[in-house]
Amino acid sequence: MSHKKFSVINTPVHNIDGIAKVTGRATYAFDVTLPGMLYGKILRSPHPHARIISIDTSKAEQFPGVRGVVTGKDTLGIKQGIWRRYEELCDEQILPLEKVRYIGEPVAAVAAVTEEIAEQALDLIDVEYEVLPAVYEPLEAIKKEAPTIHEGVERNINVTRHIEWGDVDEAFEEADYIREDWFKCSGQHHMCMETRCAVSNFTPEGKLTVYTGTQSAYYHQGLLAGVLGLREGDVRVIAPYTGGGFGGKFELDAAQFCSAVLSMKLHKPVKIVFTREEDFIASKRRTPMFYYVRTGVKKDGTFCARESRMFSNGGAYTGMGATALYLTGFFHSFPYKWKGYRYDGYRVYTNTMPSTSMRGFGAPQGMFCSETQIDWICADLGLDPFEVRRKNGHTPGYEVPGQAFIGSCGLEECIDEIEKWAKAKGELPPNRGIGISACGFMTGGIFNWFDTPYSFSSAVVTINVDGTVELYVGCQDIGQGSNTTMAIIAAETLGVKMEDIKVHSGDTDHCPADLGAWGSRQTLMTGNAVKMACEDAKKQLLEFAYAEMGINIVYDLDIKDRWVHIVARPERGMKYEELVQKALRGKDGQRIMGRGYYTPHRKGMISPAYSYMMQAVDAEIDPETGKIKIHEVMTAHDCGQPINPLGLVGQLEGAASMALGYAYLEDMPFEDGKLMNPNLVDYKVIRSTEMPPSPSIEVDTYEEEGPYGAKEAGEGLTNPTAAALDNAVFHAMGLQIKELPITPERIRKAIAEKKAQEAQK
Amino acid sequence: MSHKKFSVINTPVHNIDGIAKVTGRATYAFDVTLPGMLYGKILRSPHPHARIISIDTSKAEQFPGVRGVVTGKDTLGIKQGIWRRYEELCDEQILPLEKVRYIGEPVAAVAAVTEEIAEQALDLIDVEYEVLPAVYEPLEAIKKEAPTIHEGVERNINVTRHIEWGDVDEAFEEADYIREDWFKCSGQHHMCMETRCAVSNFTPEGKLTVYTGTQSAYYHQGLLAGVLGLREGDVRVIAPYTGGGFGGKFELDAAQFCSAVLSMKLHKPVKIVFTREEDFIASKRRTPMFYYVRTGVKKDGTFCARESRMFSNGGAYTGMGATALYLTGFFHSFPYKWKGYRYDGYRVYTNTMPSTSMRGFGAPQGMFCSETQIDWICADLGLDPFEVRRKNGHTPGYEVPGQAFIGSCGLEECIDEIEKWAKAKGELPPNRGIGISACGFMTGGIFNWFDTPYSFSSAVVTINVDGTVELYVGCQDIGQGSNTTMAIIAAETLGVKMEDIKVHSGDTDHCPADLGAWGSRQTLMTGNAVKMACEDAKKQLLEFAYAEMGINIVYDLDIKDRWVHIVARPERGMKYEELVQKALRGKDGQRIMGRGYYTPHRKGMISPAYSYMMQAVDAEIDPETGKIKIHEVMTAHDCGQPINPLGLVGQLEGAASMALGYAYLEDMPFEDGKLMNPNLVDYKVIRSTEMPPSPSIEVDTYEEEGPYGAKEAGEGLTNPTAAALDNAVFHAMGLQIKELPITPERIRKAIAEKKAQEAQK
Repeated sequence: MSHKKFSVINTPVHNIDGIAKVTGRATYAFDVTLPGMLYGKILRSPHPHARIISIDTSKAEQFPGVRGVVTGKDTLGIKQGIWRRYEELCDEQILPLEKVRYIGEPVAAVAAVTEEIAEQALDLIDVEYEVLPAVYEPLEAIKKEAPTIHEGVERNINVTRHIEWGDVDEAFEEADYIREDWFKCSGQHHMCMETRCAVSNFTPEGKLTVYTGTQSAYYHQGLLAGVLGLREGDVRVIAPYTGGGFGGKFELDAAQFCSAVLSMKLHKPVKIVFTREEDFIASKRRTPMFYYVRTGVKKDGTFCARESRMFSNGGAYTGMGATALYLTGFFHSFPYKWKGYRYDGYRVYTNTMPSTSMRGFGAPQGMFCSETQIDWICADLGLDPFEVRRKNGHTPGYEVPGQAFIGSCGLEECIDEIEKWAKAKGELPPNRGIGISACGFMTGGIFNWFDTPYSFSSAVVTINVDGTVELYVGCQDIGQGSNTTMAIIAAETLGVKMEDIKVHSGDTDHCPADLGAWGSRQTLMTGNAVKMACEDAKKQLLEFAYAEMGINIVYDLDIKDRWVHIVARPERGMKYEELVQKALRGKDGQRIMGRGYYTPHRKGMISPAYSYMMQAVDAEIDPETGKIKIHEVMTAHDCGQPINPLGLVGQLEGAASMALGYAYLEDMPFEDGKLMNPNLVDYKVIRSTEMPPSPSIEVDTYEEEGPYGAKEAGEGLTNPTAAALDNAVFHAMGLQIKELPITPERIRKAIAEKKAQEAQK
Repeated sequence: MSHKKFSVINTPVHNIDGIAKVTGRATYAFDVTLPGMLYGKILRSPHPHARIISIDTSKAEQFPGVRGVVTGKDTLGIKQGIWRRYEELCDEQILPLEKVRYIGEPVAAVAAVTEEIAEQALDLIDVEYEVLPAVYEPLEAIKKEAPTIHEGVERNINVTRHIEWGDVDEAFEEADYIREDWFKCSGQHHMCMETRCAVSNFTPEGKLTVYTGTQSAYYHQGLLAGVLGLREGDVRVIAPYTGGGFGGKFELDAAQFCSAVLSMKLHKPVKIVFTREEDFIASKRRTPMFYYVRTGVKKDGTFCARESRMFSNGGAYTGMGATALYLTGFFHSFPYKWKGYRYDGYRVYTNTMPSTSMRGFGAPQGMFCSETQIDWICADLGLDPFEVRRKNGHTPGYEVPGQAFIGSCGLEECIDEIEKWAKAKGELPPNRGIGISACGFMTGGIFNWFDTPYSFSSAVVTINVDGTVELYVGCQDIGQGSNTTMAIIAAETLGVKMEDIKVHSGDTDHCPADLGAWGSRQTLMTGNAVKMACEDAKKQLLEFAYAEMGINIVYDLDIKDRWVHIVARPERGMKYEELVQKALRGKDGQRIMGRGYYTPHRKGMISPAYSYMMQAVDAEIDPETGKIKIHEVMTAHDCGQPINPLGLVGQLEGAASMALGYAYLEDMPFEDGKLMNPNLVDYKVIRSTEMPPSPSIEVDTYEEEGPYGAKEAGEGLTNPTAAALDNAVFHAMGLQIKELPITPERIRKAIAEKKAQEAQK
């Protein structure tokens, strides 16, 4: 654990785009207005499963103000998907030619001079459907007699995943106690403040520019090129600002695709904005999962073996589902050492909206099932939940057999901190309990499923004559503050101030390719690229400092706070701005540029580094109504070296809010394939005034793989909350709730069942 | 003269932005619309010279819809100018604090929610002036009793310039014949299709973005930073497209400055668009000049000596006038060898709009006076104008003593071609004549008056995975096609196709600093930088081709038309796209980037290379009306290696049109300091249907300093036309017109005078 003294890192700073956002000056794709721009609207399927017999657009085309209508026939009909490496996982035509597979699936799009006209024209499109039988739940869809959603896909099984290490059966034999449970985890809507929106502008030179909110401008560049028959380099994606992503904005969406197809047909800019309802019914969602978990432990609480089977509701298409399917299984083992571990996951197509990645990426579901069962086992065996977690938890240098190499790991410190906090609370009143949950998470993925020869992250830095710095990164700021993080790393590395750094991101023509904001990868991966680029540029400057300062012994030189100096004698030096000018003159005025990149070198199959944390929820239940009141959500957290403590707090609070919503409020009920609450009245998210206090403390670790020791923060913390709350419910009232969200109805039902059981005894 | 065989260079191509322009899809600053944008209008002085006593903006500020008013008091009051290296030449406050010096000078600016409201509010601003005596002509303004326009500037002499070589007096003594004449050259309006326009957006982070038409985004970045007290790096200038420049759009203008000041005060985007009238009265213009020329020659036509005195009407401020003052004197000697040469130029302040650079940059005036007098001398001595020009003309390798080194020079070939053409015309009818004029011009300037440590030109190139190329240049396409030229040079150097190159220019955040489009510098300077950057990138690729192709002897490798091959055995090779992918994988996916730059290494004081040309005008005069009918304008031209023959023709035709306008149509008459024709009804420019045929032929030269042998084209050809037309008038009717433009009135007057003289005889 080597800590340098930092000038910029670890100082709390506001996000560099904070003022723009709070003053309303930040412009999103929605704010883009181009000369001659048309407005598009999308006609969507009213059926969960139907064959398209014919689409007659002639009346709509003749409607005054309409400029054009497109259907699947106006496209290349390419089945696309983000898992480009595997053709069979590319299964979605955004404007399908033959079948619709969920209610809300696009079938046609209209462009008109106003949004209202486009909307009206939708009613004039005549689609003839042959309605097909539909299926909505995975355990139904895998049945032999279930309708086939994708031709040739037997039993609607989209992807399977098997993870195994150790001799699982032997390890079960060593166990003194075995427990098995069935769990059901719900879906969750990403609920970005910004709904899907794109402005596409196809120019006469055959180049397409798309302004859109995205988690990865580079993915959208590649995906659009693929489905439109253009070269990547002929597609430019610009993300002015992005109003949230949470895993839902790195696949191609219908706003992007339909606006592009319309713009290419009509040679005009076309804007499509999803309504809130469209965003609810026809974007994707967190994957609902059915989990069977069987766990064997020794009397003393030592974990022996676990086997799980998971069936997920994949919805109509693959999306990022294949990754979620793997990650849920991997993180279901986390953060513990298992002698034997076996996971079989089945992603099943259904006639509902596709499920995909969402903050936590499968881990929240896997950990909910794991962490609740652990507490129940502890209760069954009379063991201390802290002690059992400490005993079995990951430690620095541990290797998850064949899966992952653990570098830094502050899990034990996190458990200690939460235990201290919980003990300090003392005895709690009746119907109130503290539940805990440990977890860990990845810091970016190392598998190249997008199949790109580019480095995973890349950065270019240019030093201007006045010392200001242009930093070009392909990472995406979706509100999580990555541009601020990159500016901090750049300022620290170059030895300048925050206001010297200008971060350029979200434009594929100007920013180097980067896989973008998902899997908590940017701080580590792009951060490393930024550090390397800045070191490269700094080296070019320091050559001239050596020459200028006339040092007769080779000293180390460095720059801090714009002061170029001999490290051993910091008072001897020169101004940074002066050095930049000298270096420019010395190099004949040529641009001073530095380059950096990062591609993980394979160490395990998942991620270069893992964060750890423990969370506790202090909750109280009203036994009459089943309503939960949450008093506090406390987190102890290991993200390596924090880069921006203020941004970190924001990320952790945001994660707690989203994870609490998942735990006891947010749900997506369907009836006959129709989402019943596609609006913010009926879909409940926690508002800021409803948030309980959610403090956190950081434990001190240093991650060798990360820039200045940093690793994941802000996504992993969506993992523990549902389990911690469920455990609080368990400790408060002895209820074992195995289904999310933990609604008052479910609590009342559990209370009734418990009473009935007790009455039977 | 070494010629390579080119794949792309010297093939006629349409400008890469051609389709965008003819379809109306190209967007200019005028088309930029930002959320919350306000509209600004400028209040202008009605007096040619007055002291500002007070400005009361209170009524305007209270006008409904008005958001703010600024005057000089809202600025830092910095006197600015583009000759940053010399403080005394920075003499213009765009919103002056004390005095106005010409009619139309800005005194205040209003921002409102609509342009109409802003316009109405101007009437509510109450300015109290003390009107001062004014002076409009330089020969008046240098008089002792003339009013002082700038305090401390004696006799209103703004700048003086002296050029001299050889022993001029001795050289005159060798002359057999000496002739002296006084000439008067008029001003000319730049007449850009796009009037001045800027959208300024000051953001809460303290950064300013200005969308504007410009000849040099980098200059405007530096100039705005200087007057607004910002760092260069905190100002971003974006030139979406620029609708013409012609020398008038690289100084700071009031649209840019006032919109920026308003935006900084109001924290809103502000757009200011000049009306056509504002553009006429309150932008700048070609410098009007009074020339005294005394030339001594031998009987056989050998040039001995010339001395000139020139007084220019500088108008109210310096602008680029200091450069024009020097260049007119230098090019007044062109393209001939003088044993002795002396020039004294005086730039004089007057109470008219400032004069500045305009296409030709002083040379058209200097050459008009020189080339007409040469024909008159030939007539006086009975010599052949072709022969005399051939005898005295520059030759390759000639050094203009102490001034310039001539590399390639195709003057003699040009004279031969035009002579052949003229002879082929045979005997002409009465009142019709052919006039000729030789000339040469610079290919960019080498003097660093903007005082920048950056290289004069710079380029960065990135190769994408699909083989497309991002080319970043700071040069400015103002309609002359420089982006096309750079794309051609890049495609040729990298061995790819035109459609592979994406040119990025006109954005200071993304494009390396470049001095921009003036003095015909970009093809040579930016072209060299682009060539170097592409060679740098190509070298990085070819390393992998060596490795891949398993060559056991060191062969030269090259790329042509996307085919990577052994130069000696072109059939052996691999696909370029494949090589790019291999190189990317080989470099761990790091971006492939090349850098290049160009800064002239001092060879003389002016330019790295000189173009040469001869033009002939075949014109007929109606002796009754004095009206001129131009039958043909023929040019023989040496621009080294043409890069794009089609673009070249466009540039030469455009130059001929502008120069013809200057010769006999365009004029800027003032009455009491007020421009009398500030509109396109009264100001006559040649329309396309009025253009006479203007063919051209290129002579074959190769310029060592230029990329692939290229040098200037399209600006130099504004130099010869006025003299060639005047010489045609002379040969048609024996009239010696010494004043521009050559209007019917002036011809009638000259006919009358000639008749009177003949009658006297």
